[in-house]
Amino acid sequence: MKVAILGQGYVGSIFSIGLERIKNGEIEPYGVPLSNELPIKIEDIEIVASYDVDKSKIGKTVYEVCKRYYDKVPESLKDIVVEKGIHLRSLRNLPIEAEGLEDNLSLSEAVDKLIESWKEKGVEVIVNVCTTESFVPFNDKEELIKAIEEDKKERVTATQVYAYAACKYAKEVGGAAFINAIPTLIANDKAFVELAKESNLVIFGDDGATGATPLTADVITHLCQRNRHIKYIVQFNIGGNTDFLALTDEERNKSKEYTKSSIVKDILGYEPPHYIKPTGYLEPIGDRKFISMDIEYISFNGAIDELIINGRINDSPALAGLLVDLVRLGKMAIERKEFGTVYEVNAFYMKNPGPIEKKNIPRIIAYEKLRMWAGLKPRWL
Amino acid sequence: MKVAILGQGYVGSIFSIGLERIKNGEIEPYGVPLSNELPIKIEDIEIVASYDVDKSKIGKTVYEVCKRYYDKVPESLKDIVVEKGIHLRSLRNLPIEAEGLEDNLSLSEAVDKLIESWKEKGVEVIVNVCTTESFVPFNDKEELIKAIEEDKKERVTATQVYAYAACKYAKEVGGAAFINAIPTLIANDKAFVELAKESNLVIFGDDGATGATPLTADVITHLCQRNRHIKYIVQFNIGGNTDFLALTDEERNKSKEYTKSSIVKDILGYEPPHYIKPTGYLEPIGDRKFISMDIEYISFNGAIDELIINGRINDSPALAGLLVDLVRLGKMAIERKEFGTVYEVNAFYMKNPGPIEKKNIPRIIAYEKLRMWAGLKPRWL
Amino acid sequence: MKVAILGQGYVGSIFSIGLERIKNGEIEPYGVPLSNELPIKIEDIEIVASYDVDKSKIGKTVYEVCKRYYDKVPESLKDIVVEKGIHLRSLRNLPIEAEGLEDNLSLSEAVDKLIESWKEKGVEVIVNVCTTESFVPFNDKEELIKAIEEDKKERVTATQVYAYAACKYAKEVGGAAFINAIPTLIANDKAFVELAKESNLVIFGDDGATGATPLTADVITHLCQRNRHIKYIVQFNIGGNTDFLALTDEERNKSKEYTKSSIVKDILGYEPPHYIKPTGYLEPIGDRKFISMDIEYISFNGAIDELIINGRINDSPALAGLLVDLVRLGKMAIERKEFGTVYEVNAFYMKNPGPIEKKNIPRIIAYEKLRMWAGLKPRWL
Amino acid sequence: MKVAILGQGYVGSIFSIGLERIKNGEIEPYGVPLSNELPIKIEDIEIVASYDVDKSKIGKTVYEVCKRYYDKVPESLKDIVVEKGIHLRSLRNLPIEAEGLEDNLSLSEAVDKLIESWKEKGVEVIVNVCTTESFVPFNDKEELIKAIEEDKKERVTATQVYAYAACKYAKEVGGAAFINAIPTLIANDKAFVELAKESNLVIFGDDGATGATPLTADVITHLCQRNRHIKYIVQFNIGGNTDFLALTDEERNKSKEYTKSSIVKDILGYEPPHYIKPTGYLEPIGDRKFISMDIEYISFNGAIDELIINGRINDSPALAGLLVDLVRLGKMAIERKEFGTVYEVNAFYMKNPGPIEKKNIPRIIAYEKLRMWAGLKPRWL
Repeated sequence: MKVAILGQGYVGSIFSIGLERIKNGEIEPYGVPLSNELPIKIEDIEIVASYDVDKSKIGKTVYEVCKRYYDKVPESLKDIVVEKGIHLRSLRNLPIEAEGLEDNLSLSEAVDKLIESWKEKGVEVIVNVCTTESFVPFNDKEELIKAIEEDKKERVTATQVYAYAACKYAKEVGGAAFINAIPTLIANDKAFVELAKESNLVIFGDDGATGATPLTADVITHLCQRNRHIKYIVQFNIGGNTDFLALTDEERNKSKEYTKSSIVKDILGYEPPHYIKPTGYLEPIGDRKFISMDIEYISFNGAIDELIINGRINDSPALAGLLVDLVRLGKMAIERKEFGTVYEVNAFYMKNPGPIEKKNIPRIIAYEKLRMWAGLKPRWL
Repeated sequence: MKVAILGQGYVGSIFSIGLERIKNGEIEPYGVPLSNELPIKIEDIEIVASYDVDKSKIGKTVYEVCKRYYDKVPESLKDIVVEKGIHLRSLRNLPIEAEGLEDNLSLSEAVDKLIESWKEKGVEVIVNVCTTESFVPFNDKEELIKAIEEDKKERVTATQVYAYAACKYAKEVGGAAFINAIPTLIANDKAFVELAKESNLVIFGDDGATGATPLTADVITHLCQRNRHIKYIVQFNIGGNTDFLALTDEERNKSKEYTKSSIVKDILGYEPPHYIKPTGYLEPIGDRKFISMDIEYISFNGAIDELIINGRINDSPALAGLLVDLVRLGKMAIERKEFGTVYEVNAFYMKNPGPIEKKNIPRIIAYEKLRMWAGLKPRWL
Repeated sequence: MKVAILGQGYVGSIFSIGLERIKNGEIEPYGVPLSNELPIKIEDIEIVASYDVDKSKIGKTVYEVCKRYYDKVPESLKDIVVEKGIHLRSLRNLPIEAEGLEDNLSLSEAVDKLIESWKEKGVEVIVNVCTTESFVPFNDKEELIKAIEEDKKERVTATQVYAYAACKYAKEVGGAAFINAIPTLIANDKAFVELAKESNLVIFGDDGATGATPLTADVITHLCQRNRHIKYIVQFNIGGNTDFLALTDEERNKSKEYTKSSIVKDILGYEPPHYIKPTGYLEPIGDRKFISMDIEYISFNGAIDELIINGRINDSPALAGLLVDLVRLGKMAIERKEFGTVYEVNAFYMKNPGPIEKKNIPRIIAYEKLRMWAGLKPRWL
Repeated sequence: MKVAILGQGYVGSIFSIGLERIKNGEIEPYGVPLSNELPIKIEDIEIVASYDVDKSKIGKTVYEVCKRYYDKVPESLKDIVVEKGIHLRSLRNLPIEAEGLEDNLSLSEAVDKLIESWKEKGVEVIVNVCTTESFVPFNDKEELIKAIEEDKKERVTATQVYAYAACKYAKEVGGAAFINAIPTLIANDKAFVELAKESNLVIFGDDGATGATPLTADVITHLCQRNRHIKYIVQFNIGGNTDFLALTDEERNKSKEYTKSSIVKDILGYEPPHYIKPTGYLEPIGDRKFISMDIEYISFNGAIDELIINGRINDSPALAGLLVDLVRLGKMAIERKEFGTVYEVNAFYMKNPGPIEKKNIPRIIAYEKLRMWAGLKPRWL
């Protein structure tokens, strides 16, 4: 199965490297939830295309770009060249010189150019791991189509154009999948889900569930099941990769405004006071972010308990490992013709599982439902 | 429904206090997992008897004893007097002067005296919250009966005699429940489970699932589902209550030898190197124990992540809150005539869920199965 | 010795309560660094006046105001009535209705009114524990005087006016002390230090050294002395008192721009990358703030070590305990005629020890120097 | 200056490797407290001899042994061959096959053989980094001499024989230094200090101050200086190196019985309840031990604060870095003829600073005193 990467940054590169190393038998598939269990094997995944808007990456091989992030890069990545993608301000305010297809083309032309490239390479699954963007969702399919056709470059983001291109591409080739691993609402935007259904596109999204949030979800589920009453939740995190740098930008942080009701409320059924957000950027922390949580709750007879959780978590590998499942599940959904979006997949892998009307559930439960969807025996149910 | 408490220590006292306070509308039923959902209400629970072997407690009212542990003790506890129970060295090496029924009676006579007392008070559910003992399981029913009949006081522990008495009592009155919240194997001892089945006794056990262990279970489940490979697990805990003091005694700690395969292995399917045990006793920490965990695991592409979890957890309320459910579930099991032991209940509430051939499963899953057993709608399944 | 409090908030109230309780023999003087060692005893301190700008506090007794923060308030606080102080936007953007002397008076008139009140009560030491302000330092004495005289209400803050009034007051009565426990630069503003010297005023300041910062200082000193090279320092903190609420205001946070070179750099001699700032406000955390630090450093042979420090620290008592020393040291400095500011005192008690040209030193060292200044034997030197 | 290593284990090897790497300009001298400041330079240190009792190490080069612990071993270590040392059960109960000089020789003969070897190589400073032993101190010089002369192999440990040999050697060559970095009391044993004085030997000891203990000392000093009353201190630590393995042996742990009054009491002036000890061994943690501390204390007005400190600390580099100073300070002490032991050095570098009548002082203070002893300007005093 053939995969295209949108955004050859840290996550895209660790995904490329780890995948090849597993295929070479160098490492175990740790961090890949369904490792060897799916009918499509890890060995069947082939990266065939890569797109970026960083001038210093375009035209380089994926091997060369990966070398910036990691030492032991497999030689097999020398065959893929990074092509120019859609920019639309997605790197704005970051210390990176960028260029995009839309610099010299209308949005429609850029979309067609992407589709042409995907066709040429036989792409089946498209993985979006761009930098977090500031965006406004569409919700209305017609408005989305109009924005592209009328070349409203200020209205759309790179991810939205990529997802639109994926729809058009899927319609033409009879089926494709688009994995949206960043916060821009796609699987939670009715405009895209509707268009995907009509176009034979599978969408998974939004925002890969890595780091502290899924852990928080399971910890509060643990408390909730014992009817311990949460007084408050604090969750800090700080890192040194581009994603944390991007989040220091106020505009991008606004993208959070469009996320649906909190994971905390979804699980607890009430909303305890909480402070949960990316806290800061500090370069030497690198990709191994530091998280710190403080939870106080009331136990039986009014007793006050407290949990403090600290962690050092490699951000990019956490997401990259999930992608190894998601591309295969995407292909499975195409084969099953489950176009639109698939909640059973999103509920386990995504922070903000689409479609928009669906809530978060505890990950441990979501995992069993996912297994059943994938045709695997549940593990403990 | 009428309840007897074996061991009027910290847990037994907080159970008594919290229960009355909830009944009085003073506090919310936090820490009681199924709070208001069961057909039997918290208001229906009535403590009618209490037994202990601490000379300074025998003959006092439960109110007076509770005052040692907590300030605001409801007046209603003035009506119950602590009676002499079975000792059999259960407080040995602890700085407590003790006496037991068996000081002047044979085991059979002591058993009969207990049964007489329970009959008189109409006890339906017996809750065992004695101090952790050093014990040897029986596994063979005949051997157990022989040990009691032949008055082998060195072979049996207080809990084993209490459980035996509960069997005999249940047989005579047509049904009763015995909740074993301490580590002595009862629900995991075939001798007791077999005898209970024949005697109309419901046993729940063993070892109430409080503190760090169930949390560890859910955290490692979280990692396991993402196929993160655990390098090691450290779990320290230290407290200042009698239970921690008791565990400084080498012999008592040996009681752990009889626990079945580790919760860690049950869930992960492999046994990562781990150091998990009660670490020490320090009086001024009191009942709010300090726990510290360190878990290192391998994520995608060989990345090493680390989680450090610290907590301050009130030990006795955590267990006492579970008891409020367990006594009601015990009564439900009697009504359904599910004699012997009930895995669906034990799997959620017990560290070492009986029967012995059953494994630990993630608590979040166990919770849903428990709800179904109890006739409640699962919460997320 | 007679003390006036400027700002009857959390700190001012805990100071009042704790002081009286110590005087009544109810509690030990824990948290008071030099407890019983100074020639002036804790029993000698008398609170005689209190000022605030919160409408709901003015005219109430200190006893009544303290009741908002704490249960057991000594009766002796019923004799002091909270008077109207200087506002000048110091509570702006906070959910408090405020009024100030300057609402109906010119700055000069307000200053005179304060002085009159202080004279009447025989005030010797004035403690400033107002809410953190947004401010611009003066540095030039003439400019400061002009701002007051020309009634430039937009140029000055409450603290600056209070400090100016203290100068004028000290000159008239022959000596007084002004303890500035908040971040506004006073002991670090040459305008005030110069004016104080001419006016018989002792200034201690700025910004009471509580919470995570002094601990950080001692921890990095520890590393520095072993020549361990710090890779980075993260220090989060979050609380639920008015001070944290005030710091969510962007303008107030700018007050940090005027602090002098970092404590970290002062001690290490180099400036490791760091993220150290108040992180957020969450009401139910209350006054017992949560702090979380992460420090990575290089040890011998390139080994990477890591320290993670979490704490729950009562913010107001930490500062209030220091004030019990500071008022007495203020009185001692008056007696010694050490007008202006006293670095030996500031270096131990203040985050930003004045005068401006002086650096931070490790607190453990500063403590010994302080003892020597106070005429006490050093403890370990 | 020429150095001999007793015990070519983890610490001895990291010391050897790091030293050569600094000399080669490969790494900075991080973790060496007085790095470039002493008159004797790091470049002047030369390892000339190494002794061990592990059969698999004897006869190998230091280079080969170091390869077991670290990847990048400098070639210069190929010139030193590990010779057979004194065993005397020092590796008993460890999974290591051992042999010692005393297997075929009397103690006196073994001592002479060591001295001969040291003379041949011109050794000036002897560094003892053997495995922690179970021992009984002598206190009486005559008894010590008698034990060696009468070949009482059950009475003495390897370290005691090494220290005795060092005395005899120093007397013969006119001066030498013995650095005891393990818990066996040498600098705190009057027998050895007296003998050293007579024999031109400098002893530094005992037990290199690494890991959690010196940090604890500085943290409690911090609290003490603010008169915060410590309710209790918990300090766990667990590691996976031979030292932690050795401490699982009950007999060895008894060696702690002879340590003098606690560092905690020395600094605070009172002894708060505490639980401070090596907690366990877990192989995959390796040399980077996990520490966890919990400190609760009373602040002003009875407020309860809590600090929780977790760390991952590389054990061997921490000690090895101190050795780079200690060997040079040893040489300086020889030159100054300060025979016996030197408190100013021990107070900073040792957990249990000799001589026995001296107490622990805060490390931050000890550091300044050390600098003054070494002829350096104090840093902040």
